Amino acid sequence: MSVIPRNPIRRIWAEGRAVLNGWLSISSPFSAEIMASAGYDSVTIDIQHGAVDYTGMLPMLQAVRASGVATMARASWLDPGSIMKILDAGAWGIICPMINTRAEAERLVSYVRYPPNGTRSFGPTRANFALGGDYAAFADDEVVCFAMIETAQAMANLDEIVRTPGLDGVYVGPADLTLGLTGRRYRTGFDREEPEMVEAIQRVIAAAHGAGIRMGLHNGTASYAAKGVSWGADLVTVSNDVRLLAQAAENSVTEFRKDAGSPSIVTRTDTTSGY
Amino acid sequence: MSVIPRNPIRRIWAEGRAVLNGWLSISSPFSAEIMASAGYDSVTIDIQHGAVDYTGMLPMLQAVRASGVATMARASWLDPGSIMKILDAGAWGIICPMINTRAEAERLVSYVRYPPNGTRSFGPTRANFALGGDYAAFADDEVVCFAMIETAQAMANLDEIVRTPGLDGVYVGPADLTLGLTGRRYRTGFDREEPEMVEAIQRVIAAAHGAGIRMGLHNGTASYAAKGVSWGADLVTVSNDVRLLAQAAENSVTEFRKDAGSPSIVTRTDTTSGY
Amino acid sequence: MSVIPRNPIRRIWAEGRAVLNGWLSISSPFSAEIMASAGYDSVTIDIQHGAVDYTGMLPMLQAVRASGVATMARASWLDPGSIMKILDAGAWGIICPMINTRAEAERLVSYVRYPPNGTRSFGPTRANFALGGDYAAFADDEVVCFAMIETAQAMANLDEIVRTPGLDGVYVGPADLTLGLTGRRYRTGFDREEPEMVEAIQRVIAAAHGAGIRMGLHNGTASYAAKGVSWGADLVTVSNDVRLLAQAAENSVTEFRKDAGSPSIVTRTDTTSGY
Amino acid sequence: MSVIPRNPIRRIWAEGRAVLNGWLSISSPFSAEIMASAGYDSVTIDIQHGAVDYTGMLPMLQAVRASGVATMARASWLDPGSIMKILDAGAWGIICPMINTRAEAERLVSYVRYPPNGTRSFGPTRANFALGGDYAAFADDEVVCFAMIETAQAMANLDEIVRTPGLDGVYVGPADLTLGLTGRRYRTGFDREEPEMVEAIQRVIAAAHGAGIRMGLHNGTASYAAKGVSWGADLVTVSNDVRLLAQAAENSVTEFRKDAGSPSIVTRTDTTSGY
Amino acid sequence: MSVIPRNPIRRIWAEGRAVLNGWLSISSPFSAEIMASAGYDSVTIDIQHGAVDYTGMLPMLQAVRASGVATMARASWLDPGSIMKILDAGAWGIICPMINTRAEAERLVSYVRYPPNGTRSFGPTRANFALGGDYAAFADDEVVCFAMIETAQAMANLDEIVRTPGLDGVYVGPADLTLGLTGRRYRTGFDREEPEMVEAIQRVIAAAHGAGIRMGLHNGTASYAAKGVSWGADLVTVSNDVRLLAQAAENSVTEFRKDAGSPSIVTRTDTTSGY
Amino acid sequence: MSVIPRNPIRRIWAEGRAVLNGWLSISSPFSAEIMASAGYDSVTIDIQHGAVDYTGMLPMLQAVRASGVATMARASWLDPGSIMKILDAGAWGIICPMINTRAEAERLVSYVRYPPNGTRSFGPTRANFALGGDYAAFADDEVVCFAMIETAQAMANLDEIVRTPGLDGVYVGPADLTLGLTGRRYRTGFDREEPEMVEAIQRVIAAAHGAGIRMGLHNGTASYAAKGVSWGADLVTVSNDVRLLAQAAENSVTEFRKDAGSPSIVTRTDTTSGY
Repeated sequence: MSVIPRNPIRRIWAEGRAVLNGWLSISSPFSAEIMASAGYDSVTIDIQHGAVDYTGMLPMLQAVRASGVATMARASWLDPGSIMKILDAGAWGIICPMINTRAEAERLVSYVRYPPNGTRSFGPTRANFALGGDYAAFADDEVVCFAMIETAQAMANLDEIVRTPGLDGVYVGPADLTLGLTGRRYRTGFDREEPEMVEAIQRVIAAAHGAGIRMGLHNGTASYAAKGVSWGADLVTVSNDVRLLAQAAENSVTEFRKDAGSPSIVTRTDTTSGY
Repeated sequence: MSVIPRNPIRRIWAEGRAVLNGWLSISSPFSAEIMASAGYDSVTIDIQHGAVDYTGMLPMLQAVRASGVATMARASWLDPGSIMKILDAGAWGIICPMINTRAEAERLVSYVRYPPNGTRSFGPTRANFALGGDYAAFADDEVVCFAMIETAQAMANLDEIVRTPGLDGVYVGPADLTLGLTGRRYRTGFDREEPEMVEAIQRVIAAAHGAGIRMGLHNGTASYAAKGVSWGADLVTVSNDVRLLAQAAENSVTEFRKDAGSPSIVTRTDTTSGY
Repeated sequence: MSVIPRNPIRRIWAEGRAVLNGWLSISSPFSAEIMASAGYDSVTIDIQHGAVDYTGMLPMLQAVRASGVATMARASWLDPGSIMKILDAGAWGIICPMINTRAEAERLVSYVRYPPNGTRSFGPTRANFALGGDYAAFADDEVVCFAMIETAQAMANLDEIVRTPGLDGVYVGPADLTLGLTGRRYRTGFDREEPEMVEAIQRVIAAAHGAGIRMGLHNGTASYAAKGVSWGADLVTVSNDVRLLAQAAENSVTEFRKDAGSPSIVTRTDTTSGY
Repeated sequence: MSVIPRNPIRRIWAEGRAVLNGWLSISSPFSAEIMASAGYDSVTIDIQHGAVDYTGMLPMLQAVRASGVATMARASWLDPGSIMKILDAGAWGIICPMINTRAEAERLVSYVRYPPNGTRSFGPTRANFALGGDYAAFADDEVVCFAMIETAQAMANLDEIVRTPGLDGVYVGPADLTLGLTGRRYRTGFDREEPEMVEAIQRVIAAAHGAGIRMGLHNGTASYAAKGVSWGADLVTVSNDVRLLAQAAENSVTEFRKDAGSPSIVTRTDTTSGY
Repeated sequence: MSVIPRNPIRRIWAEGRAVLNGWLSISSPFSAEIMASAGYDSVTIDIQHGAVDYTGMLPMLQAVRASGVATMARASWLDPGSIMKILDAGAWGIICPMINTRAEAERLVSYVRYPPNGTRSFGPTRANFALGGDYAAFADDEVVCFAMIETAQAMANLDEIVRTPGLDGVYVGPADLTLGLTGRRYRTGFDREEPEMVEAIQRVIAAAHGAGIRMGLHNGTASYAAKGVSWGADLVTVSNDVRLLAQAAENSVTEFRKDAGSPSIVTRTDTTSGY
Repeated sequence: MSVIPRNPIRRIWAEGRAVLNGWLSISSPFSAEIMASAGYDSVTIDIQHGAVDYTGMLPMLQAVRASGVATMARASWLDPGSIMKILDAGAWGIICPMINTRAEAERLVSYVRYPPNGTRSFGPTRANFALGGDYAAFADDEVVCFAMIETAQAMANLDEIVRTPGLDGVYVGPADLTLGLTGRRYRTGFDREEPEMVEAIQRVIAAAHGAGIRMGLHNGTASYAAKGVSWGADLVTVSNDVRLLAQAAENSVTEFRKDAGSPSIVTRTDTTSGY
């Protein structure tokens, strides 16, 4: 790897800090630009659960480029065509959902690295412009590759997964991991306080660090993210654009209704409830 | 007019309440849908200063329709083609910037009403589907038409403007009105506390009410909006999607940085400073 | 003009036939392609009342090009920037709404012709590719320019308007013309049977032909369009994509409900009612 | 399941009626809105053969939401990333093509249900807003999951497929099923009259009902759909937006040509012929 | 003005150099990104003759931001709503076509400057993010405003136009100027060699410099642009993305046909011919 | 097959000529239209490495249709849903990346042919309009199917792959093939001069021709493409829209800088360097 990494995520890690990651689920280059200027170290475009596809992702990558903030994408699935296409578009990293076995982790890595390290097909059409004309020379060293650990099966295979050569980190989505480990015993959502879930998260951190790789954690609040960092998490995501906007708007409405003594006639959507 | 208005804005006014209006400057049907579910009585798509044009407005109108929240648009200018096109797309109201004379107010009204009340051309292509198949029968009674008062000239002509037949209300954008009345003596922005600006706003309310029409006020915060209502404002806008998202994201980042003791390496954008 | 016109509309007129025109109000290159293959002689993209703007019009012009069917656009207003932009995009003709005076007709012509015939600015960026690399040499002779006659004022000025040098035709939208001439005495819509409206339409045909120019008529049904041709109309539009699709779908639903004895639980939209 | 289903499709079934389904193959939120107002009980966006992808589907789902009509999507293939993404976008149901074995049917169900019922990943980003904030609590009970039976292999495995736990129905596309069962012996298309095809369709209905699940049938005409209902079909699709528009436009042109005695100079496309 | 200008165009002028400007007529953020990386000092998005509107311009402005290259837009006409909207979107400058009188030049300036310098309405929604959070404080000093001189009338009023307070420069489009001054005596296009046109161009340079403002020249080739600089032009545009791509592709095809001895079966479009 | 093929690619082959193919990696119907008018025999939209997805491809197919040039698409991967969707949209051919075994080649063919020749699902929604209403009758004979040979494994299985029934050709991407055969010994890119790579390319030509199928070669320059034709290649691609535009713009800037003695202040992107 180059002495000073080009990928801002690797640069922050090289400085011994945790990365604060923003999360983009609205398909809009302008909301992406707003998020990228808010002070995050990186932003991730969510192709899996976000309301955004490749066609929407491309102008978001372009709009965010000026901020100097690293951009990753969460792929919709372990699919070679989609993952390579995201990288060719100029993302600095991939977060891949539902990696449950060592074999799946190996396939993931192979899609992200060029031969002989992997099977990625060569054609970094926009990455050449966005990340540097010598992209081919540094891509394998700089691009970040995260496997998501979010099922009971993945937890059972954790030690094999984290030792997959070429994998840079594992990422935990606590909503799915809770569903996967405990069924519908608990409410859905992030920021788990159940001891068995806290322990599961900490076990992933320990396994990752034991294998010399990074651990990322998805959070609902800044305070839980800070707690995650105190546990050792190397990258923490806090909320996303959808919830930030929804909550800010609802708070503003509530404040006005209270100040003006004006009851709403519209029933608001409760987007936080679960099973 | 029908006994019970179809336009939710008129319905709220008929109930003796002030309308709480949300403001949409991001071109995205999903962020529009999020805003429309936050509890506002109406939302306005800003074609003038928002990063959205007709092409972006149309799917936003469609996405918001399901919420039952009234949708208006701020036109980019006193332009007949654009204003009629916005109405044909199914907006319940128009806010038109920079109406400085009685003649301009009359032109505005004429673009919004069908002959013989005005000169609007007939062809409510989507309004027929979105607002009702008998749109032609009620449009002139239901569609709301606001003229913006935001210059010294408009203030000088205020009493004539508010008496324009067919005009439903005047709307004050305090940023422009402050520039127009005081030049660059004060910072730009909403929520004016300077006595001369407070007095100007109250004068607009009094003039509108004196002429039997409505007054709308653009605000930066819920508390100022509540103050506006206490002064008599009939429709108050609080902030917009851009600022709500930017501030929520910045607050989240700041909270994390503080909790985690992690200084940002990115300089944040100050979007509130002015002259 | 070239011996054999390039513009299919002029070619049909040269053959002594009336042009059958389709009308596009849905912003979709695929629905445009479907309409262009249905057998019309020309199709017109409605930028005024259709749910389509320049951004949506461009791929529609591109999709229709292969059909060999001439494409026109109805501009949203007598606005030089928009009209010239439509022509640069490769439309074979312009229909401009609400031309009420000779002066307005002259301005319209000036926007459509290059100096010294008019004031059109030179830059036929896509027209060069779509209509021919020697576009500059034939544009003034081939592009078709229609002024809409749809108000009492326009009828009063009719004889002056039709004699505007460079104007190719006048186009009647009976919905607006009925509103303009009779207020709200009659239902809105096309296919007027009131004697005064029939007479008005026939007067426009006579005036146009007296001045050596063409007359176009907007119709709701094929049978009325055929009647228009029998009166002398040179171009007739029948319905549009919105109504064709809506009626076909409603007919299909009605037929099924009847055949299957299955009453609908959804109230259908009546898009034909008026004042 | 809740006493009164939220999903309109289940509500109609609970009332003992067959669902009349519209089919959307044009990527346009406006044509979707038109179709949704025509009186169908549900509409399905065709991601497989329609000219529409996720990016086009999202604003269509948003535009249709206001109509109260249930929306489903036909996925392009048995692909977990795509299917989950469609559901997160707020579709009330999935129709999945080319399910040929019990194992494929089980994979399909697993993509549609959350653990422990399946393997769907949690993140109903827009569904939370469009279908209800407590989506997580009811999704598994309400979302409808159809497997398409359209090959000889699927027919051979039919009895196993219909008994897949969690599957709500099977759906027959007669064009593919005819190709699959009879090769190119017959013309392509819907509304089969060949005894062996009628028998095949009826066999699917019987198998579905024998297993306590629903049967859906794709039809070209309302009359055949009504026949399907008389055979027991629980959901019938009639034609699609492409054919409805194409046929309505062609009929209008033909009627005009006949009425006006004006022969077309354009050769029309025959989109109904087959092998 | 700030000691070191923020606007890269003003920075280059402050260094005593001429600005090399690229021209964008294809509506694509990726082609914009490619052009912005080619070494131009600035790029201009052509809303007038380019195949791009506001909706297409916005993601192009976003994509180009990262390059550090200044972005201007050519407005479609002297229209306040459009011009202010372009500036709010974050353009560093405006080139306005067809400025023929001093009054028009004054209107142009008024649309570009905030009160009391002009009548621009306040709301730099994206400019705040793209150009700096203190945009309001520097916009009037930094934004560049060019009036196009392209008719006989404009030449007659040249000395008055160049002295319009607040105007930064005049810009010559030689295709229109040639049409305007000489009718159709010469071929259309740039890079005029006729003595009367060379003299006209030089007269504009002299008038601009005499009034202390800048002069911009549109060119077809690099060599003519260099000649323009030698005459004193302060900003020169060379060709555009459409012609660069078309010519490069045609050259490649021609070279192959010659090398491979393979005659084309497709007749190429000649986009350079004129009257 | 019909005596005279409908697919222009097959028509050229029937005439004994090699096909000159253009390559589209920019998602823009206008740049596609420009490329399609440059004299190529066919153009291919690159869904794999190009910055374009299905949503962007569709209007490009529509825009190119008028040119009479055949259009193919490179699929992103061996994925049935995507490949069938591309064909339904009206592409005349598919180039599929990374076909490494006979089994993969057989799957590819099966996705492209209707039963009983393959497993393609029936629903040529746009192909019916774009390629002919009797599409079903000729599709299997006319659509062209290329498998890409670009790894060591594919070369090892070459003789089996080229003999796959229904496969029309193999296509070599020299950048990937060089990576696959030689690791990072050589620079990345096209136009290989290393004897082992030249020999590999020639071996593919010989194998294809030995099996009676076609061979396609991707090239960086026209001269190498001509060399490929002299070796026997049946279809040659030269460069793509991205590189043609980037190089043309950079050449223009360089020429200006030299002519005007004006050094650039922007560092240009080197998009040609490799490992």
